[in-house]
Amino acid sequence: MGKLVIVGTIAFDAIETPFGKTDKILGGAATFIGLAASTFGVDATAVSIVGDDFPEDYLKLLSDKNIDLAGVEIVKGGKTFFWSGRYHNDMNSRDTLVTELNTLADFNPVVPENYKDAEVVMLGNLHPLVQASVLDQMTTKPKLVILDTMNFWMDSALEDLHNTIKRVDVITINDEEARQLTGEYSLVVAARKIHEMGPKYVVIKKGEHGALLFHNNEVFYAPALPLEKVFDPTGAGDTFAGGFAGYIAKTGDTSFENMKKAVIYGSTLASFCVEKFGTERMLKLSNDEIHKRLLQFKDLTQFEIEL
Amino acid sequence: MGKLVIVGTIAFDAIETPFGKTDKILGGAATFIGLAASTFGVDATAVSIVGDDFPEDYLKLLSDKNIDLAGVEIVKGGKTFFWSGRYHNDMNSRDTLVTELNTLADFNPVVPENYKDAEVVMLGNLHPLVQASVLDQMTTKPKLVILDTMNFWMDSALEDLHNTIKRVDVITINDEEARQLTGEYSLVVAARKIHEMGPKYVVIKKGEHGALLFHNNEVFYAPALPLEKVFDPTGAGDTFAGGFAGYIAKTGDTSFENMKKAVIYGSTLASFCVEKFGTERMLKLSNDEIHKRLLQFKDLTQFEIEL
Repeated sequence: MGKLVIVGTIAFDAIETPFGKTDKILGGAATFIGLAASTFGVDATAVSIVGDDFPEDYLKLLSDKNIDLAGVEIVKGGKTFFWSGRYHNDMNSRDTLVTELNTLADFNPVVPENYKDAEVVMLGNLHPLVQASVLDQMTTKPKLVILDTMNFWMDSALEDLHNTIKRVDVITINDEEARQLTGEYSLVVAARKIHEMGPKYVVIKKGEHGALLFHNNEVFYAPALPLEKVFDPTGAGDTFAGGFAGYIAKTGDTSFENMKKAVIYGSTLASFCVEKFGTERMLKLSNDEIHKRLLQFKDLTQFEIEL
Repeated sequence: MGKLVIVGTIAFDAIETPFGKTDKILGGAATFIGLAASTFGVDATAVSIVGDDFPEDYLKLLSDKNIDLAGVEIVKGGKTFFWSGRYHNDMNSRDTLVTELNTLADFNPVVPENYKDAEVVMLGNLHPLVQASVLDQMTTKPKLVILDTMNFWMDSALEDLHNTIKRVDVITINDEEARQLTGEYSLVVAARKIHEMGPKYVVIKKGEHGALLFHNNEVFYAPALPLEKVFDPTGAGDTFAGGFAGYIAKTGDTSFENMKKAVIYGSTLASFCVEKFGTERMLKLSNDEIHKRLLQFKDLTQFEIEL
């Protein structure tokens, strides 16, 4: 059982969807990644920052899931990162209503001493220099470094992003961002160009259309489970990444065959995340439910053709 | 080995894509369906209509693939249905530049006598009354009737469409059309509503995102093969349907398990279709190439998780 370092935001989210609206609730990339990874029972630490306006109850929700919070800085008199967004009717696109960086603007991540030899590092979406500073602190080269990023950094910090991308093994990115990063429409060609930037493995997230895992000339496709109702997509991408990272940390196996399974676990967990607002569904998820849904994924994708 | 009746257009297409432009070339739903079905060596007949401007060479291309053309009416002095379209850069959307119905306006399909007991009937996209008239001619109830349709008939002949849909076992429809037909955004809910209209099986085509097969509460997902280059999507949906219908006709097995395989064959054949303009790729397709690509589909989708 390997150790997992998660760096990312712990935040307030306020969400509007066609089905309802929330006040400020628990959100953030490290939150969703941590909750997903915690389903594997791995030793995980979240490296993040909040203000002292952040409810202890929220932190307790995470520590109750065995997520080590020694690396979460609580800034006295500071305010926690806040994001608010409104989803369109198709639930595939959204408008950002508010982004208040607050304490996140001065985030200097500090990896707890006992996690500097972690086998797996999951770099949630943050400024690429902040992501790189986490790698600088590792005393042992991690077995696998996974990076999530977004178009915002391509627009505002492309050179830094390229420098950080060089240092990671796996990148998770959505389809439009893969196209932006490479200037290529075909995801096959885009993945190849991203390989050339450094990462040996490229995961392209396509939302309701699933995810693709590329490695050299190999490709694997994990569909998203077709759902009656997508209630709130917030955190689905981070939940996917957390499931992926958690499964790798648990198994310690970075082969392509095992990464296929990691992608399936990521998709499975993400399919729960979208069923309720924010973290609600993930906080109440049982192993039995996960097991049943994995069986659904098998039924959804497996076939027998005699060749 | 069952017999297959294919009804649909045999046509001239003129296509513009970001990669090039064609003059009038061989096209039409029955053409693509027939070429895909012919890879299974089934006894297939195409029921269609052309003008005497249609080159004998084109008809020979089809009859050389063992597609029976006894049901193709050649109208003296008539002109063949002509469609022209231009694809956008993303290759997922297109503008229709020209639609000349010509002889198609008076198409009264006549099923050849020796095919009136065919096990499988594939109703390509046409006016729903024309599709229904084919079913009226069958002397034996077919084992499986598959219907393809499009938004045009929802706008212009919705009641007729509903009456024809009632009579079929399988409907193939794209995602936007499924949403239009049912008024439901979720494809799971849309499929359920289409079930209630009659078809026991609903296939929702999602283009580059693959296809979903629904049957009661079961669902199967066949991805599209990620391709470096989609050269021309024309005919991909019909090729998919032809692969599906051809495989069912060959095996005579209409179980859900076998339909999964039929969907995989459909996706496999469609992945070839888009590699060249029009029918070019399908006309030169070898069994060995199909076999290799099926192996790619297995690698793309199959995984082992111990549960």
